[in-house]
This record gives sequence, structure tokens and C-alpha cells, in this order.
Amino acid sequence: MTVFSRRSAVEPFHAMDVLAQANRRRADGYPVISMAVGQPADPAPIAVREAAGRALQDGRIGYTDALGLLPLREAIATHYHDHYGVSVDPARIAVTTGSSAGFNLAFLSFFDPGDRVAITRPGYPAYRNILRALGLEVVEIAGNLTAEALRAAHEERPLKGLLFASPANPTGAVITPETLRGIIDTARSLSIRVISDEIYHRLAYEGEDTTALVFADDVTVINSFSKYYCMTGWRIGWMVLPENAVRPVERLAQSLYISAPELSQIAAIEAFGAAAELEAVKARYRLNRELLMRRLPQIGLELAAPMDGAFYAYCDVSRFTNDSMDFARRMIAEANVAATPGHDFDLAEGHRTMRFSYAGSFEEMAEAMERLGSWLA
Amino acid sequence: MTVFSRRSAVEPFHAMDVLAQANRRRADGYPVISMAVGQPADPAPIAVREAAGRALQDGRIGYTDALGLLPLREAIATHYHDHYGVSVDPARIAVTTGSSAGFNLAFLSFFDPGDRVAITRPGYPAYRNILRALGLEVVEIAGNLTAEALRAAHEERPLKGLLFASPANPTGAVITPETLRGIIDTARSLSIRVISDEIYHRLAYEGEDTTALVFADDVTVINSFSKYYCMTGWRIGWMVLPENAVRPVERLAQSLYISAPELSQIAAIEAFGAAAELEAVKARYRLNRELLMRRLPQIGLELAAPMDGAFYAYCDVSRFTNDSMDFARRMIAEANVAATPGHDFDLAEGHRTMRFSYAGSFEEMAEAMERLGSWLA
Repeated sequence: MTVFSRRSAVEPFHAMDVLAQANRRRADGYPVISMAVGQPADPAPIAVREAAGRALQDGRIGYTDALGLLPLREAIATHYHDHYGVSVDPARIAVTTGSSAGFNLAFLSFFDPGDRVAITRPGYPAYRNILRALGLEVVEIAGNLTAEALRAAHEERPLKGLLFASPANPTGAVITPETLRGIIDTARSLSIRVISDEIYHRLAYEGEDTTALVFADDVTVINSFSKYYCMTGWRIGWMVLPENAVRPVERLAQSLYISAPELSQIAAIEAFGAAAELEAVKARYRLNRELLMRRLPQIGLELAAPMDGAFYAYCDVSRFTNDSMDFARRMIAEANVAATPGHDFDLAEGHRTMRFSYAGSFEEMAEAMERLGSWLA
Repeated sequence: MTVFSRRSAVEPFHAMDVLAQANRRRADGYPVISMAVGQPADPAPIAVREAAGRALQDGRIGYTDALGLLPLREAIATHYHDHYGVSVDPARIAVTTGSSAGFNLAFLSFFDPGDRVAITRPGYPAYRNILRALGLEVVEIAGNLTAEALRAAHEERPLKGLLFASPANPTGAVITPETLRGIIDTARSLSIRVISDEIYHRLAYEGEDTTALVFADDVTVINSFSKYYCMTGWRIGWMVLPENAVRPVERLAQSLYISAPELSQIAAIEAFGAAAELEAVKARYRLNRELLMRRLPQIGLELAAPMDGAFYAYCDVSRFTNDSMDFARRMIAEANVAATPGHDFDLAEGHRTMRFSYAGSFEEMAEAMERLGSWLA
């Protein structure tokens, strides 16, 4: 039987393919440095791992309520109070199996096949791939998202939804509070549902985080313990939902996920208390960022984006190639450095860009810059 | 904003709602015994938990390849050799975030909106709910699945897919090897894609397991570490795929899940070596099963299904109620026993059935029978 669904013909997530190629090459004994995947080099905070260790000893790791353990939902609500000064009822929080589950649940709950949902280009490829797999029409807004750009896209043909991230992947761009307010107000006036991906919050290097929840209760926020909290492989994240969206999301989550991993839920409760450790990690990102901002242009990799947040440098590689996929493969094979072809983030322009994650150690980043400098010279 | 998608209007997974109600009541201090969720009372095997503990100490828990850690895929392949005498290439195995992810990935990869997929009734509610959320037409085959019943459903209007479980939830029914061969041969002759849910394998009390892979390479098998291996809350399972389906599933998995939880993957490698512990758990299920087979009819809860496998008793409660949902709520509130209304498994007939999971401890099962006996008397 050789027939697959039309909707399975989504693009690969090339960063994951690069990760697999890098893993195979590393297994063959090559000292590959990975700058391909947005993954902190540090383990989860000690208190997080200790909580997991205690839970392992205590015994059964079971299903939880589909919306997650109440103490975790409460800890997340407290985080909104402490970090943003926003009051969020724990009942509006759904614990999810990473932000990945948050996107899937939001798209399924809010949109029907054929609905138009806007995202920015370049952007996180899973947005586009999940939207397409679910039969939604992806509308790409190129460049910086503004209220005007949203209105223009809506006037072409009405939008049902808007999804954006700030800080953004792969550009590191941060939306200012005033612009954010304008986007949300405009979306409301046009009955466009807003999904704010805040997975890179606490990873901006200039200025404070602003959650979309400051401006509205009817937006959906998606976040995760993967990035700032160093818990990628734990697959644990959350949504903050409009009150009337909780039950639709819960119903879908019950069948699609049952619950998020309980061990990760128990452990994540401790993440918010680990600020000292996590700020030390962030201080290293800041050093890595300064190194890359200086070195990348020196070796011919011009910055194509601001690097204001997250832990990515998005570079123009058109001096060297018109085929970033091939460039990425050769970079692994010849320089033992893995990075992600821009094609992941931008099907129109990504053939001449590459994304470098600087979430690794400073030593690795410095060594990678050396290798790339020699390779490109 | 109050508009939700049509596809979000799936049924709740009532077992999960009952679990939430039971958890709230337990938090209020009531000694609720849960027979609602198919969840072993025992923790994961010691070697599994020890492996997780070591990984926690070693450091970073990260993303893995989307298809999973190679040593786990190899261990699963070895299991097919050892347990079934079937040779499976590890390259055909996709590690998934529980069987839940396996269903979602299979449905998305194989079927487009409007395609007809057959399942059995009564059956696991998430099949129906996920299929509907993905725009697929659910065709229910009532009662025992046979080649004839499949052919009849196909002749009404052509089917694209067939999904079944053996042992089955909620009935415990086991499909014999000859019947299984007939179903698979018939499906192939009609170009119906077969998905065999084998999550309750190693939990049959009469006779041996037969995997669909014995009869065909072009079927998709979905399995999990949740049931026999006592790892529900770890959210870890697998698929065995036709060779040409690996890449479509991998592409979707990259964007929809990134990877299964790494800690669970590392730990699950040890699960196949824990036969002694797990067979002791199974011996307890056998005792529980004998207890329930004897006691349930005595207290007026007639068995509506064979109890040949899995860990469920499916009972006819029409003597007591015509509304199993209300019956379930009252059972928690008045007898402190949680069980799942048949409505979960059968929208047509489930108002007069209940499912009791006997995966708990023998003491709990005995106490639950006492409580229910008094309550119903």
C-alpha cells in the first residue's frame, strides 16, 4: 500500500533532520558541534531534577487530569503575578506536552479546515506544518508584524486567526508593548483570534517581557518550560486560555494526549524557584550572543536579524551559496558544525539564510566560530 | 470571542472527567477507589526507574531524533523477535508520546478529511474523537470484528482504513489468529489500510498474543509502555510502520511532537528486561479478574463481555439505570467507587453499561466489590 494522505506531504522540519544527521555523524566519532536545534546546553535546574528523583522513588507515575496537576497550574498562575503583574486564574491554565501540543490544541479548538490563519515569515516551521496538516490555510506576513500588516492581510481575504512569537524564532525580533497592543486591538476589531507564542520570554537581552495577557483576556498564550527553563526533552509546556476555551481544549486534550508526562509536571513546579541558576545560564547566552554578533560578520556571515531575544543568529549566507540546505549538509560534513537551513523558516527566501543557535556552551560557540572561519576562508 | 471550531465539538473522554471528579473528591478527604482509568496500580519496574534516576543525574534531558533513540528502537525490535518470533527492522519503528501520538500520526499520515475509517463499537473513545477532530468519517462496526463484518461495512461505502484492538478496550475480547488473518487478508484485497492497536498485548489470560505483523508487513501496529509495562504517566509508546510510511510519519512527528520525552525513552529501554516483576503484576490482575468475574454478577452487575484480556470488566447495568453517566456520578458520590460510563465506549448502547478497570490492587478491588454490593443492595 503506497498511498499517503495529501496532508502528510508537509515539509520536513529540517532542523530535526539536521539533528538526526549530526547525531549519526557524532555516533561515527566526529566531534560535531550542534547549533542546529534551539536547545539549552544546560540540564534542568537542580531543584527540578531533585523533584523528579523524589517522584521516581515515591512510586507510580500516572495519568493526571487532562489539564494538568493543580499545583503546577497554580505555580504557573503565580508566575504571571510575580513576573508580569497579571492575575490569571489557574482554571484558565492547561498544562501541555510541550508547546507543540499547545499549538495543535489551539488550532483544533479554534479553526476549521479552510480557515485562514496568519503567521510571520520567517517563522517557526512547525506553525506552518501543523496548520497545513490540519487543513488550515497559512497566510504569511513577511517581515515585522504590525497592526497595519495584519489589517492588510485581512483585507485581502478575512483571517480567522493570528499566531506570532516575541521574541521570535529565528530572528530574535521583539515586538514592543505599543506595537503589541495595536496588533491585539486590531485583531479584536476584526474578530481575529490571537495566539501569542511566548516560549522565548525571559530571553530578551534588551527590555522587559510583555505578555499579551496584559492587553486582553480573550487571547491564547502558549509557553513552555523548554527554553529559559532548560527542560526541552521533558516535553512540558502550558497554555493560558480564554475562560470559555478551557472546556473545548480539555475535551480535545483528553483524547489526543490524555495528559502531559506526570514526572515532568511534578518537576516543573520547581522551575520558577530556580531563578539564580537560570539567570546564570542566561548570562552565558548573553556572552555567546556578543561573541556571535562580533564574529559572524567577521567570517562573512552577515546578520539578517536583530538578535534581540531568544538564542538565535539568523544570517545571510548568499555570499557563499544559493542553496542553504546543501550548505548545511556540507557544513556538518566538512566543518563538523550543524546549523539549520533558512528553508525551515522561510520557503521563499530561506535558500540564502541559515539559523545558528547559541544556546550551547561558550567554549563550543568559540570553537564553532573558529571552524566556520577556517571553512569559509 | 465565543466561536470555536466545529471539530472541537468532540465528546469528552468521560473516563478522564470521572478521574478529575475522583481526584477532586479524594482531595476533599474521601477514600475513593478508582476503577475508572485503565491504569496499573504498580509503579514502573525498578530497572526502569533506576535508569531514569541515572539519566537525571547525568544531566541534560533533551530532544531526541523525532523517531526516537536508536537503542530504544532496537530494544523494541528485539522484543518482536523474542516475544513473537517476528523480524522487524528498527528503522520501521517510531517511538511516540504514548499510543495517543501513534493514533494521531497514523490518522494524519494515511487519511484525508472525508475518508471513512472503521472502528469497532464498543471501543476506545479516543479513536472516535481523534478521527472526528481530523475530519474523518467514523464507521462503527458493532460487536465482534470479522472479515465478513469488514466486507459488509466496505460494501455500504468504501473504507479507507480499519483500526481495531485485541485484546480490546472495554470488552477484553481477543481476536483469534485465524480471524485476524482473515481480517488482514480481506482488508488488503479491498485496499483498506490496517491499524492494529496492540496496547493490551501480554495481558491476555487465555492463549498467546498474535501481532498483526505475523500476517503482513504493510499494516501499522501501535503499542505502548503504559499497560503491561506500568508506565502510563511516562507517555511513551511506539509504532511499527510499513517501510514507506516511516518518512511521512517522521515528517509529521517532527512538527507535531518534536520527540517523545527523553527520560521516558531512556527508561523504557529497560522495560523489556523486567519480565519477572511484570509477570507478578499480571498474576495480580489474574486474581482481580477472578474476583470480579465471580463478584460482579453476584451483586447484580452482569458481565457484558468476555474479560479474556486487558484489565476491564464491561458490565450491563440496565437493572439499575438507563443513564450510566448519572450512575457513574452517583457511584463516586455515594459509594466512593469511580468507574467509567459505557457512553464513553458506545454512544448507541452505552447508557446501560459501565466499565470497571481491575488494574488496581487486590485489596482495593475487594473493598470496591464490598462497597458496590452494599450500595446496590
